[in-house]
Amino acid sequence: MSRWAIGIDLGGTAIKAAVVGEDTGLLKHITVPTHKSAGPGGIILQLASIIADLYQSASVALDPADCAGVGLGAPGAVDPEKGLLSYPPNLPGWGIVSLRDELRSCLQGKERLSIPVLIDNDANAAAYGEAVYGAGRSFRDFLMVTLGTGVGGGIILNRKLYRGANGTAGEIGFMIIDFEGAGVHAGIRGTIESMIGKEKIVALAHRMIASSPVGSSAGNHCGNDYSRLSPRHLEQAAKDGDEVSLAVWSRVGEILGVGLANVTALMDIRKFVIGGGIAAAGNFIFDPALACIKRSTLPSMHEGLEVVPALLGNKAGMFGAAALCFD
Amino acid sequence: MSRWAIGIDLGGTAIKAAVVGEDTGLLKHITVPTHKSAGPGGIILQLASIIADLYQSASVALDPADCAGVGLGAPGAVDPEKGLLSYPPNLPGWGIVSLRDELRSCLQGKERLSIPVLIDNDANAAAYGEAVYGAGRSFRDFLMVTLGTGVGGGIILNRKLYRGANGTAGEIGFMIIDFEGAGVHAGIRGTIESMIGKEKIVALAHRMIASSPVGSSAGNHCGNDYSRLSPRHLEQAAKDGDEVSLAVWSRVGEILGVGLANVTALMDIRKFVIGGGIAAAGNFIFDPALACIKRSTLPSMHEGLEVVPALLGNKAGMFGAAALCFD
Repeated sequence: MSRWAIGIDLGGTAIKAAVVGEDTGLLKHITVPTHKSAGPGGIILQLASIIADLYQSASVALDPADCAGVGLGAPGAVDPEKGLLSYPPNLPGWGIVSLRDELRSCLQGKERLSIPVLIDNDANAAAYGEAVYGAGRSFRDFLMVTLGTGVGGGIILNRKLYRGANGTAGEIGFMIIDFEGAGVHAGIRGTIESMIGKEKIVALAHRMIASSPVGSSAGNHCGNDYSRLSPRHLEQAAKDGDEVSLAVWSRVGEILGVGLANVTALMDIRKFVIGGGIAAAGNFIFDPALACIKRSTLPSMHEGLEVVPALLGNKAGMFGAAALCFD
Repeated sequence: MSRWAIGIDLGGTAIKAAVVGEDTGLLKHITVPTHKSAGPGGIILQLASIIADLYQSASVALDPADCAGVGLGAPGAVDPEKGLLSYPPNLPGWGIVSLRDELRSCLQGKERLSIPVLIDNDANAAAYGEAVYGAGRSFRDFLMVTLGTGVGGGIILNRKLYRGANGTAGEIGFMIIDFEGAGVHAGIRGTIESMIGKEKIVALAHRMIASSPVGSSAGNHCGNDYSRLSPRHLEQAAKDGDEVSLAVWSRVGEILGVGLANVTALMDIRKFVIGGGIAAAGNFIFDPALACIKRSTLPSMHEGLEVVPALLGNKAGMFGAAALCFD
């Protein structure tokens, strides 16, 4: 017997869905645009249709009796026990939706498919995906950080998701490291996200390029149109050895490192898996982050410290959502 | 059958020891000066003698068969599994001591007493004491913060101690909230302890009194000798309504609150139990701390937030050390 499950990452732009074998890993996956304008009801119909299609095609080769169910990672506040999704930031107008039960009803009714359904927060699902199939496989405890438009996180303790009593744990982006500083995000001053969310990195780069006496080669990568400057251009310029771009990434790494040092001091977590689009800058960020953690914690906390890249890219969420079905 | 245990809080100045009944609470306790100059060997002999005396006197009324053992809270880094105490800050010259096994051998040999022995960090023991017998009884998850010379912490998750993989969890004093600020403690910039350790509070008060245009009545409480100014004087002045002293405590509460907001965002912990000598200032600190947590976290994290005083005072450590024996 080898169990399998369907894992789904529900995003504001795309729905990623996969058939995952517990022992065999990714068997099939698809990505389709989210029918965002259809509202909760329409998207639940869309999800049910995707699930039914994947289930049918998987059942040719796999025993339906071994199907552990469907796991769904969703943006925003998720209550896995009650199956509720509240105010997903990228799905405007949703309010509080009984996503799990409505999806299960829709599968049973329209699609005549009775399988277990569970939901969790997308950052949690991604962290669990890395834990089971990715960069966290050898770590008992770690924090997964997603560096992208925002800064998200998920905590794995003893190889399980740590959600906290209310399901809101892991919000590393809301950690305050400069409580009287200039950055503000979501009304809170000095958080990690207020300093190294994607747009904040670009703004930082603009300031550092403008004030550099020697200039920067980042312009070569954005057609010298700095209004188009993106983290990708800064990554390319850093690879060319551009001092200003390297300094930008070093600063990003330092700010991240202060936040991770706080995680080490508070939770005794010493492994950090970094994913998301911004993490493509790799060691330009990770090396200064690790150095910063070391100088920002006691020597007795240094043993075993590691900052490593995530391995599953944007598949982590659907991997993790499926893996949650095997628990 | 009602179990009982001996709980000990080993401090640099005093050893506090108690007989604690699992259901009946504190039955007897003593405090004796630590034979600091006797080194590890001498202090272990002293501990064994105290334990044997307490055991004998307790055995008059309690069944020795119901004794769950002796628990010891010690300062510094403790490995409960290996029974090691490393470099306790208030017991100079100790290095790494196999405290549990040496104490057990000493009890068996010299005192002819065979009972289980366990050790843990003193901040962890205090947190567990508050969890079982104190202010944390009704909380499933909480952070205990000890405000004193330093700022210590212990985490309770699901009514158990959360120690972390290496036993170093809970170090709220080392949380960085102002990474480019002026305060430095143990070589780390902008930590909570670098800003609201006891001496830092006094230094803050000196600055605020000196720069106050209206003056402060704190001088009335220290004989107008500001070199003697202590947190106790600031507490008394705040009770008189002294604006400057109230502002000092408000600032202390704000700084603490930023750190607690980070704990809420990261761990989804919403209950905070505050002990230690500085916590005598009570709501002068707790009210601004709670207000600060609320403005420093997302509204979705506010439900159930509480900042409450510890109840067991300096007995929390021995209570908790004993309670660990009942696990």
